[in-house]
Amino acid sequence: MKALVLERQHELALREIQLETEPGPGEVLIKVHTVGICGSDIHYYTHGRIGPFVVDAPMVLGHEAAGTVVAIGEGVTNLNVGDRVCMEPGIPDSNSRASRLGIYNVDPSVKFWATPPVHGVLRPIVVHPANYTFKLPRNVSFAEGAMVEPFAVGMQAAMKASIKPGDTAVVIGAGPIGIMVAIAALAGGCARAIVADLAQPKLDIAASYEGVTVVNIREQSLKNVVSQITDEWGADIVFECSGAAQVWTDIADIPRPCGTIVVVGLPVDPVRFDVAMLSTKELRVESVFRYAHQYDRALALMGSGRVDLKPLISETFSFENAVEAFERAAEGRPSDVKLQIRLDD
Amino acid sequence: MKALVLERQHELALREIQLETEPGPGEVLIKVHTVGICGSDIHYYTHGRIGPFVVDAPMVLGHEAAGTVVAIGEGVTNLNVGDRVCMEPGIPDSNSRASRLGIYNVDPSVKFWATPPVHGVLRPIVVHPANYTFKLPRNVSFAEGAMVEPFAVGMQAAMKASIKPGDTAVVIGAGPIGIMVAIAALAGGCARAIVADLAQPKLDIAASYEGVTVVNIREQSLKNVVSQITDEWGADIVFECSGAAQVWTDIADIPRPCGTIVVVGLPVDPVRFDVAMLSTKELRVESVFRYAHQYDRALALMGSGRVDLKPLISETFSFENAVEAFERAAEGRPSDVKLQIRLDD
Amino acid sequence: MKALVLERQHELALREIQLETEPGPGEVLIKVHTVGICGSDIHYYTHGRIGPFVVDAPMVLGHEAAGTVVAIGEGVTNLNVGDRVCMEPGIPDSNSRASRLGIYNVDPSVKFWATPPVHGVLRPIVVHPANYTFKLPRNVSFAEGAMVEPFAVGMQAAMKASIKPGDTAVVIGAGPIGIMVAIAALAGGCARAIVADLAQPKLDIAASYEGVTVVNIREQSLKNVVSQITDEWGADIVFECSGAAQVWTDIADIPRPCGTIVVVGLPVDPVRFDVAMLSTKELRVESVFRYAHQYDRALALMGSGRVDLKPLISETFSFENAVEAFERAAEGRPSDVKLQIRLDD
Amino acid sequence: MKALVLERQHELALREIQLETEPGPGEVLIKVHTVGICGSDIHYYTHGRIGPFVVDAPMVLGHEAAGTVVAIGEGVTNLNVGDRVCMEPGIPDSNSRASRLGIYNVDPSVKFWATPPVHGVLRPIVVHPANYTFKLPRNVSFAEGAMVEPFAVGMQAAMKASIKPGDTAVVIGAGPIGIMVAIAALAGGCARAIVADLAQPKLDIAASYEGVTVVNIREQSLKNVVSQITDEWGADIVFECSGAAQVWTDIADIPRPCGTIVVVGLPVDPVRFDVAMLSTKELRVESVFRYAHQYDRALALMGSGRVDLKPLISETFSFENAVEAFERAAEGRPSDVKLQIRLDD
Repeated sequence: MKALVLERQHELALREIQLETEPGPGEVLIKVHTVGICGSDIHYYTHGRIGPFVVDAPMVLGHEAAGTVVAIGEGVTNLNVGDRVCMEPGIPDSNSRASRLGIYNVDPSVKFWATPPVHGVLRPIVVHPANYTFKLPRNVSFAEGAMVEPFAVGMQAAMKASIKPGDTAVVIGAGPIGIMVAIAALAGGCARAIVADLAQPKLDIAASYEGVTVVNIREQSLKNVVSQITDEWGADIVFECSGAAQVWTDIADIPRPCGTIVVVGLPVDPVRFDVAMLSTKELRVESVFRYAHQYDRALALMGSGRVDLKPLISETFSFENAVEAFERAAEGRPSDVKLQIRLDD
Repeated sequence: MKALVLERQHELALREIQLETEPGPGEVLIKVHTVGICGSDIHYYTHGRIGPFVVDAPMVLGHEAAGTVVAIGEGVTNLNVGDRVCMEPGIPDSNSRASRLGIYNVDPSVKFWATPPVHGVLRPIVVHPANYTFKLPRNVSFAEGAMVEPFAVGMQAAMKASIKPGDTAVVIGAGPIGIMVAIAALAGGCARAIVADLAQPKLDIAASYEGVTVVNIREQSLKNVVSQITDEWGADIVFECSGAAQVWTDIADIPRPCGTIVVVGLPVDPVRFDVAMLSTKELRVESVFRYAHQYDRALALMGSGRVDLKPLISETFSFENAVEAFERAAEGRPSDVKLQIRLDD
Repeated sequence: MKALVLERQHELALREIQLETEPGPGEVLIKVHTVGICGSDIHYYTHGRIGPFVVDAPMVLGHEAAGTVVAIGEGVTNLNVGDRVCMEPGIPDSNSRASRLGIYNVDPSVKFWATPPVHGVLRPIVVHPANYTFKLPRNVSFAEGAMVEPFAVGMQAAMKASIKPGDTAVVIGAGPIGIMVAIAALAGGCARAIVADLAQPKLDIAASYEGVTVVNIREQSLKNVVSQITDEWGADIVFECSGAAQVWTDIADIPRPCGTIVVVGLPVDPVRFDVAMLSTKELRVESVFRYAHQYDRALALMGSGRVDLKPLISETFSFENAVEAFERAAEGRPSDVKLQIRLDD
Repeated sequence: MKALVLERQHELALREIQLETEPGPGEVLIKVHTVGICGSDIHYYTHGRIGPFVVDAPMVLGHEAAGTVVAIGEGVTNLNVGDRVCMEPGIPDSNSRASRLGIYNVDPSVKFWATPPVHGVLRPIVVHPANYTFKLPRNVSFAEGAMVEPFAVGMQAAMKASIKPGDTAVVIGAGPIGIMVAIAALAGGCARAIVADLAQPKLDIAASYEGVTVVNIREQSLKNVVSQITDEWGADIVFECSGAAQVWTDIADIPRPCGTIVVVGLPVDPVRFDVAMLSTKELRVESVFRYAHQYDRALALMGSGRVDLKPLISETFSFENAVEAFERAAEGRPSDVKLQIRLDD
């Protein structure tokens, strides 16, 4: 089949490659319809690696996907041929200790699409476990279905925050994940999300969601805005989504006493952090690694009309123009939230 | 001052009564603008008692109120004259064991408006502790402010449920509190609320909220609808708001394994309940007594536009017509959600 | 091999039966050393059924077992030949929805030893999944290893209670499970367990554990004792382990405001229960179905010396005398907590 | 009355000072019996300040105290003259937002004994709110009662950890607080506490508690010991009690996936910390500021015999020798856990 292959750093090719086409027991075969481009896809393209994961053999990219079931393997009962679906890109070992505890996202043996040496899904068809393949509600398009993967990160962050209904959230960083987190935090029970960034185009997109207040930190002090909105009490939850090291200098000023910081953005290097600041307010810090059990929750919110991710799809490319799509994504335009590639035609 | 006084069972009078008019330390004086009529007000009117609480002396009714601060007592810093506010009707002893633990709603020494022998708030002015008086956001009207009290019950139920983002809720009973619970459950993170009742007019009101699916149990099996919507898994949370004894016969069929039932509606008599049904699914049951710490959360949700209670205000009466308002409320029309009385003019 | 077979109600035989002897992938073969007799074993013997589970074919009894690994299947890495182990008797489908969520105990497809039609473990050898086979710490004997199964129920109850360090627990019912629950509650963080029963011999055994206060409810009012010990506040947690219907009449008198009731004992028939009593104190009810992820926790507590189950082993029978052991167990002597059968020789 | 006064840095005097002697409403007068010396008392003595708190006027030291009620103020119902008690040294404003939420420890308006400008309790009598004065169980001595204050920090850490019964804890740092934390973690449900330090005398004291395993990190790798004890899974909870900056370099190696780190020890300066390490394992970090609602829990554990703090009392001085006691404490002998001063007789 013809797939988008990262041959090596900087070299993409839309070319033939031999991949599995028969669903085994518990698996389904899916005709891929839409695939979103993630920051990690671009990073493999531009750097050839992410931390310990090195592209040392050609690898198909893409892990944010939706499509249609075209064949089902033995024993599959939850899906039928013709079902419109989206797919969770990580396949854990169901017998590992982490999986048995229900936290399969931290199972070290997970196989994750487009993480070397596992091929991704920018290809016409793919075989996938039925348990990690989810039916799209009628009102959720393939394009939205391909948004579930990044939104699931937001959902995981919202779940880890243990939101109480009516909480006030702060989201630091208005990149694609920051916006996803803000949407999930609001859908997950927050009354308002105060989203902070330096880039106005990103803030403008965030501001289009009800319940979002934006703060351009070139112009305003986030601490002051939060203090004013919360009567000097502080935010219940702070989602750190920028990955900027300097945020850690005074992040403890933002939450309320006994509030929570959720780490989503990861600074490349160790940060300087005043541990004692945590204690004075008795803060809690939660962190997020991908997601577990979030796809059905995300789809329920999208299906009921309570979450709309369409405004985040900035542009859609045909599969023929997949390389062009990656070049555009690599530019990193501040007004681009999500670029997608459509494989059907 | 002239207040709406319940002289005894069945006898209401709009007449002069001597009540406190000077705010002490930590208190404010409020000019009352709007007061909602609650089922308990009506019950005192029609029955002269609720359980152990007997009206054996004239008592002013009303406990769902909003108004304007007209004077502040010594040491009040969170409010100013002219602030538009709503008030929490229960005043706990801040030094009781329950209050110190943060669960002041279960403090037995709480003084609650319009619960004998404490006078309610259907009167032109009232003195109240500043700590239990909350500023209305600019976009929240007095009428909506007077809705915060019943909505706070819904918020307490949503909080007790420990909703995870994207949960599926079932609400049994579409009376005023059932609808409030459904709205709070959705605002609090549920993807959808399946609201069940026998009375179609009530269901029609509930159905106007996004995320609500209604089930008229004269026509459909709630169990079947839930099973179908949740792929035979069951609802994450069931809010029992009907108070109907027979619901308890098979309520355990509705939640998923390890799901939650929140008791909001209270059957008058003991019910027949199969305790073993809880264990087979390892269910959790939570219950709700009024609310604690919910007013600021409710107002945050209303202020951000994420919760709209206006559709629940069925009709507004002038203070002069207060007795007529109570007669109408006592009729219990299925299409009436909330009747309010306006005291300013 | 020769096993203890329940031919039909009232008829036990120690006779030859053909059972699996080869460990498959992920499995181990265990030489069984000690097996405890559980109430459910006796119930199948005396009644031929438990609810929907009917003994309509000969079935080997026994599910509380410890032994020695004598062979390991392909891919097993956590165990070696010669390891002393105990075994979790329920084998869930690791791909079921419940298992993936980490709550495999409520997986309806679980296969459980000595629950028709699954054979139990009163036999010389058994094949079992390595994931549900646990190494015994050096200081834990086979006899204690065979106690882990019933203790795991106590651990599950303690876990579900969400004990806060220093909580006061009440345990209603001092049968084997009640005592196990009291021990687990204390090990799990409670300062004290007030154990109530009618039978003094059972209370005497419970009283031998540090932190236990016993109440013979023929002589004392449980409510009064709890009130006195807790300064009229109530118990943080009430574990209902008696299964007695009448306990439900006034169980809400025992917990403190916002306290918890954990249902462990199951009344045979529906009970009369005043739901409104839950709400007045805003109580929470939790329930327990077997256990999940408790074996390693139980063994850690036993290995560190913090839990000692030896005093609960009332008598040990040889395998030859297995039928006699069942007859003794069926007598239900109040001073018998646990009878065990030793298969090695 | 004659009190131990810190005149200024380095200058202590046992001299007359005028202090309140009449209990007001809700207060009691206590004859002080025993007072422990805390690290903060010593720090004020040796440095004249702790962070922003500067001793710029003479101040009585001491905040770990037990004694006998000798008079009660109006409205006090929970205590009687003659009651043996210990006292919580911080008095919050019961009407503050934090207090009403039940988290009075983070109320910024708290008045705390021996924190400038509030006098401490190294004096013959003291007036205190009855709500923060706790009866000692019969089997708890005054000396043990004076240990409740530092033990409450351990209890708060154990509570924040959300221990599940049978968890494995690691405690880094075996100073007085580290040992208190280990004891509280075990009493609070942990199966074992692995306590790490460099100083063998401290480890020897910790090792005398059942359930404690000690690791001298001069000789052994903590990571290796934890890995071996937990089958390479990691500890459920890591209590950082050393305050050593370098611990933060690789602390994330110690907990299991989705494990918890509780910050108890506070590094003086910001640390270098790799935030990304948290996420890879999806760790949670909790922190502790003093304690709230722990005294009755601590006393319940001590009263039931489940916690014994007597081995931690290294030496007791008479009030006449109070200055000598401080000099000894300032030496910081590794074998000294707690020094106490006895004021009676």
